[in-house]
Amino acid sequence: MSLEAKAALQEFRDAVEIELSKFVAEQSTFLNSISSDLAPVAHALSTFLLDSGKRLRPLFAYSGFVSTDAELDVSVTRAIASLELLQACALIHDDLMDGSDTRRGRPSIHRHFESIHVQEQLEGFAPAYGLAAAVLLGDLALVWSNQMLNEARLTSERLSNVSPIYDEMRTELMAGQFLDIHEQARKSTDLERSVKIARYKSGKYTVERPLHIGAVLSQSHSPALLDALSSYGLPLGEAFQYRDDLLGVFGDPSVTGKPVGDDLREGKRTVLIALTDAACTESMRSESKKFFGMPELDAGGISILQEIITVTGAKQKLEAMIERLTQEALQAAESEVIGERAHPLLLELVKITTKRST
Amino acid sequence: MSLEAKAALQEFRDAVEIELSKFVAEQSTFLNSISSDLAPVAHALSTFLLDSGKRLRPLFAYSGFVSTDAELDVSVTRAIASLELLQACALIHDDLMDGSDTRRGRPSIHRHFESIHVQEQLEGFAPAYGLAAAVLLGDLALVWSNQMLNEARLTSERLSNVSPIYDEMRTELMAGQFLDIHEQARKSTDLERSVKIARYKSGKYTVERPLHIGAVLSQSHSPALLDALSSYGLPLGEAFQYRDDLLGVFGDPSVTGKPVGDDLREGKRTVLIALTDAACTESMRSESKKFFGMPELDAGGISILQEIITVTGAKQKLEAMIERLTQEALQAAESEVIGERAHPLLLELVKITTKRST
Repeated sequence: MSLEAKAALQEFRDAVEIELSKFVAEQSTFLNSISSDLAPVAHALSTFLLDSGKRLRPLFAYSGFVSTDAELDVSVTRAIASLELLQACALIHDDLMDGSDTRRGRPSIHRHFESIHVQEQLEGFAPAYGLAAAVLLGDLALVWSNQMLNEARLTSERLSNVSPIYDEMRTELMAGQFLDIHEQARKSTDLERSVKIARYKSGKYTVERPLHIGAVLSQSHSPALLDALSSYGLPLGEAFQYRDDLLGVFGDPSVTGKPVGDDLREGKRTVLIALTDAACTESMRSESKKFFGMPELDAGGISILQEIITVTGAKQKLEAMIERLTQEALQAAESEVIGERAHPLLLELVKITTKRST
Repeated sequence: MSLEAKAALQEFRDAVEIELSKFVAEQSTFLNSISSDLAPVAHALSTFLLDSGKRLRPLFAYSGFVSTDAELDVSVTRAIASLELLQACALIHDDLMDGSDTRRGRPSIHRHFESIHVQEQLEGFAPAYGLAAAVLLGDLALVWSNQMLNEARLTSERLSNVSPIYDEMRTELMAGQFLDIHEQARKSTDLERSVKIARYKSGKYTVERPLHIGAVLSQSHSPALLDALSSYGLPLGEAFQYRDDLLGVFGDPSVTGKPVGDDLREGKRTVLIALTDAACTESMRSESKKFFGMPELDAGGISILQEIITVTGAKQKLEAMIERLTQEALQAAESEVIGERAHPLLLELVKITTKRST
C-alpha cells in the first residue's frame, strides 16, 4: 500500500516538474524577448524553481483532488503546479528578510545577485543590488503563480471555485509571515502566539489550503469533504512546522542545506523557543540571552542553546506534541468521507512531513 | 469639451475610490480576524492606497473601455480599480529598493515600520523590520490586486479576455523594474537602453496595457481598436516617463512630495542622464562624477548637476522629445476606430500626463 502510494506521489511530482519546466521556459523566452539583460533573472528563477524542492504543497493538493475520486487531467496538474511558484516567492522573500545566505545548499537569491554585482564589478553597493533583485524575482514568481493558474485551461467553473481559496491562502501566507517577523521583534515569547503563527504559516498554507484547492478542482467536492480534509490537514501542518523548528536547531546542515543554528542566530520565536522560555531557570535565561538572536553566534553558543533547549524538556515536549498531532492527522485520514484511493496517499504524506530530516 | 471630459474622469476616479475603500475595508476585517497584531499592516496599506494618487492607470483603462462605446457597470469599475493595488505594490517595493524616505510627502512604508520599531522599542534592528514589512506589504498589495480582479464578478468571458493582458503587464512591470535597477549598476549610460526602460516601465505599464485592459473588458473590442490605442498609448507613456524624469531633477519638492534631487542622489540612469552624458565635455563629466549617485548629495551638488544637465542642452532636448511624442499621441487619439466619446478623455489625459507638476 505504502509502495503504491509512494509511486503515485512520485509520478505526480514528475508531472508537476514537467509543467513547471514548460511554463518557466516560456516565461524565459518572453523575458529574453524584452532584453538579453534579463537572462540572469530567467536563469536564476529557473534554477531556483527546478533544482529541487519536496513539492509538498502540490502533493497535498493532488491528494485533495484524489479524495474526490475524480480523474486527473493536465489542466488540474498545471493549476496545482502553480503553487510551487507561490512558494518560490515566499522562499526568496523569506531569505531576504531573514538575511539567510543559503537555500538548499546554494546561495540565496539576494546573495546570488550580490555575487554577480561583485564579479562583474558593477557600480554601486552590491547588497542593494542583491536586495532589489530578490524583491523583483520574488514578485515575478508571485505574478507567474497566478499566470500559470490562469493559463492552466481550467473550466471557468473550476477556476471560479478555486480562486477564492487561492486568494485567501495567499493573504494568510503574507499575514503569517508578518506575524512571524513581528514575533521576533517582541520582548517576550508567548506559546499561544507562536502556536498561532505555526497554524497560519504551515497548518493552513502548507497543508489545509492545498488540500482544499485540490478538492475544489474536482466537480464532486462537498463541504463535508473539505471539513474532513481540514481535520487531517491542520494538525499535520502544525506538526510539520514543529519538525521544521526542531530541524532548524538540531538538524544536520549537510542534510538540511541550511547552516546549523540559523533559526537561533535569527532569533526565531518558534514554539520550541516559547516552550524553552517557559521552563527556563533564571540562570539559563540569562545564559540564553547572551546567544539567542546574535548574528555572530558560533558553534559554542549553538551547543549551549541546544543544551538549554534539551534540559528544559522543551525538545521532548515538542516531540510529544508532534506525536499527538500526527496521531490526530492519521485518525482523520481514515474518514469515510475521503475517497478510498486518497487514504494511502494521506498516510504517506504524514510520514514525509513529520519523519523527515530535511 | 474639456470640462465635460474632466468631470467624467473625476466621476470615474470617485467610483474607483469607493470600490478600493470597500475592498480594503473587507481585507482589513479579514486581517484583524487573524490577529490584532495585523492592525498596523491593514492601517498602513489602507492609508497608502486611499490617501491620494492620480489613479492614472484606472483612468487610462476607463478611457480604453469608453473607446468601445460600451456601457460601464460596477464589475468593470472594480476590475479596473484593482490596477491601483498593483501600483501600490510597485511603489512600496520601489521605495524599498531605492531607499527612498518619503512617498507623496509621507514616510515610505519601510521607513514607517522602521519608526514603529523605534517608537515601540522593539527588539532587533529597526531597518530590518522596516525592510521585512515593506516586502510583505508589497506582496499583499500584489495578491490583493488579483483578488480584487477575481472578486469583481466579471463574466467568465471578460475575465478570460483580460487575464492574459493583465499577466503580461505584470511581468513587463517587474522586467522593467529590473532593467532600471541593472542600468543604474552599469558603468556607462546608453540612450537606447534608457529609452527601452522608459517604454516598458511607462509606455506599456502605465498607459498601453491599461488602455487594452479597459478595451477588452467590453465585448465589442477589435484588434484594430487595440492597435489604435497602442499608437496613442506608447508615445504618451514614454512622454509621461520623461516628464517624470524632469520632475525628478527639477521638480519642486513641496509639489512632488519627493525630496529634491532624489533621482540624482540614487544615480538613476534616465534618458535625461543619457542625453546629458552624450553631450558632456570632459570637464563636465569629471565634475558630474563627483556628485551623481552620491548618497550624501546636498543642495550645492544638486544645483551643479542641474546646471550641467541644462547647459548640455539635455533638458531642452528631452522637452522637445516630450513635445514630439505628445503630438504623436494627440494625432493617434483622433483615430476613427476609437469611439467618439473617448476622444475628449484621451485628449484630457494627454494634458494630465505631460503638463503636470507632480
